[in-house]
Amino acid sequence: MPELRKDPVTGRWVIIATERSRRPSDFVREAPPQLAITLCPFCPGNEQKTPPEVLAFRNGGGANQPGWTHRVVPNKFPALRVEGELLREGEGIYDKMNGIGAHEVFIESPDHDTALADLPEKAMEELLWAFRHRVADLKKDPRLRYLMLFKNHGEPAGSSLLHSHSQLIALPVVPKRVREEIDGAHRYYDFKERCIYCDIVRAEIADGERVVMETEHFLTISPYAPRFPFECWIVPRRHGSHFENMDTSITANLAWVLRMLLRQMDKVLEQPAYNFMIHTAPVQDGPLTYYHWHVEVIPRLTRVAGFEWGTGFYINPTPPEESARYLREAGLV
Amino acid sequence: MPELRKDPVTGRWVIIATERSRRPSDFVREAPPQLAITLCPFCPGNEQKTPPEVLAFRNGGGANQPGWTHRVVPNKFPALRVEGELLREGEGIYDKMNGIGAHEVFIESPDHDTALADLPEKAMEELLWAFRHRVADLKKDPRLRYLMLFKNHGEPAGSSLLHSHSQLIALPVVPKRVREEIDGAHRYYDFKERCIYCDIVRAEIADGERVVMETEHFLTISPYAPRFPFECWIVPRRHGSHFENMDTSITANLAWVLRMLLRQMDKVLEQPAYNFMIHTAPVQDGPLTYYHWHVEVIPRLTRVAGFEWGTGFYINPTPPEESARYLREAGLV
Repeated sequence: MPELRKDPVTGRWVIIATERSRRPSDFVREAPPQLAITLCPFCPGNEQKTPPEVLAFRNGGGANQPGWTHRVVPNKFPALRVEGELLREGEGIYDKMNGIGAHEVFIESPDHDTALADLPEKAMEELLWAFRHRVADLKKDPRLRYLMLFKNHGEPAGSSLLHSHSQLIALPVVPKRVREEIDGAHRYYDFKERCIYCDIVRAEIADGERVVMETEHFLTISPYAPRFPFECWIVPRRHGSHFENMDTSITANLAWVLRMLLRQMDKVLEQPAYNFMIHTAPVQDGPLTYYHWHVEVIPRLTRVAGFEWGTGFYINPTPPEESARYLREAGLV
Repeated sequence: MPELRKDPVTGRWVIIATERSRRPSDFVREAPPQLAITLCPFCPGNEQKTPPEVLAFRNGGGANQPGWTHRVVPNKFPALRVEGELLREGEGIYDKMNGIGAHEVFIESPDHDTALADLPEKAMEELLWAFRHRVADLKKDPRLRYLMLFKNHGEPAGSSLLHSHSQLIALPVVPKRVREEIDGAHRYYDFKERCIYCDIVRAEIADGERVVMETEHFLTISPYAPRFPFECWIVPRRHGSHFENMDTSITANLAWVLRMLLRQMDKVLEQPAYNFMIHTAPVQDGPLTYYHWHVEVIPRLTRVAGFEWGTGFYINPTPPEESARYLREAGLV
């Protein structure tokens, strides 16, 4: 059973994933060998290599059969498990919980080796719909406090399987970094009585220098103080705290915007590895006036080194005004 | 001039290092080619390839001449610069400062291609002495609020030059992550009237399971809730908040302990890339009863992925009890 442990000094929780326990010799430093299509657990025909699906969009075929266009399955080696009761307990001076939660994989296409940015727009739309459906389902479980939706693309970004996929991890606590962002936005709201992200949207549109793209419903910017070169945020122009409550009418627009940004990054940075994460309010909270959901996209271009680990202080060699300009100049791709 | 910018939501500061500004084509994803010894700016005979030294230990020769055993120079491409006045200003809704600070490089040996763990013990002792001397000198500048001492070893850990070296970055603000650690320790002290690290030392010695090594003056442990496999902390057994105020008599013991830990990691993990960072109290603060300086060592074995970036929540596949056991069993190496 995986275990959640709390750092007694900073209060940071860590998942000790005992079921994936690795011995020293398992830390291979080379890229993992890619599976042949016949062995790929995400390929059509291999549905029995994954746990049974929890959601699928399909053109034909029955559950756990080929015919799907998008398929969601529990992770076979989950960082957290959904079974059991949430137990918090002490261990000497320390605190822990059992690893209650969920870990799901979103297989974005039956196609084994096409990247998400190169798949048709429909694949991106289906991914966003699948995210929403799974959040709506999992939020019924009151033990789950935070649902993290994210994608790792490419080995430097932490992906170990080529076949394009995203992930969801459901946690029994609201993570520290999420809490920080929400608390920061709350303090701003207390002071100004305005949402800070709404203010950022207005300021960035007025200034223009850090804008990558502006559509009817979304603004893509390279933020003022980015940790990484070419880090970008996609912020909905209309206020809303929860990703899963976004107007259904704008989902297609988000799919278009996110896909375009990934394609622009591919063009400017030559197919970089990247991560994207949906930043959204804790699922059990009602609508918040002071928090604003958004998507953060980080191409993995630089190494995080000792200075960053020690301080949480990032050195970014590319001003966001330059990142935005390069991406803007890539045009519609 | 580099610029410090503040994320308006979380309050995280970022260094936008405009003088190292990189275009998209500069983000080479392969390992950088290693310089021939004749071109290495850290090799004896090439002293003119670096800015003039600010400290050196030497057996002979004059300043900026061969004959040194340890040499400290300003970084040629500093993330921050020491010249000028500290100016804080607004930029629309955002906040920034000019990049006042310092960035120095500690060249640990004249030897071009021997790793720190494989150099004689004297090299490690000289590094620690040089750290102390430079901190004592820089803390006289009241603009400098935090001094970060760290090492990146190997390309996956963010090192771009083979020749063994460490670094110091002096900042005009106390970084968020440092502040979190100090505030967490302070809360514990308010509650218990004991230093949390002193309690950790006592608890870990009593339990023994996470102890890697215990000497007269230091305890090496794999902490209870580590972010990474084989993450280790070296904690002085006697309370003290500032690294630079450690009793001079125990410096040699720390050098021995740190070198031994790096050698044990080399044996167990086959020469991994690693980072170490000295966690210490802000230089302008007097002695603190509630904070306890220590060294954190992180071998770079796993990739940090979207989930970690989004949440600050780490998934660690190796329980610290196992990491400690493997390192302990490596014996004296």
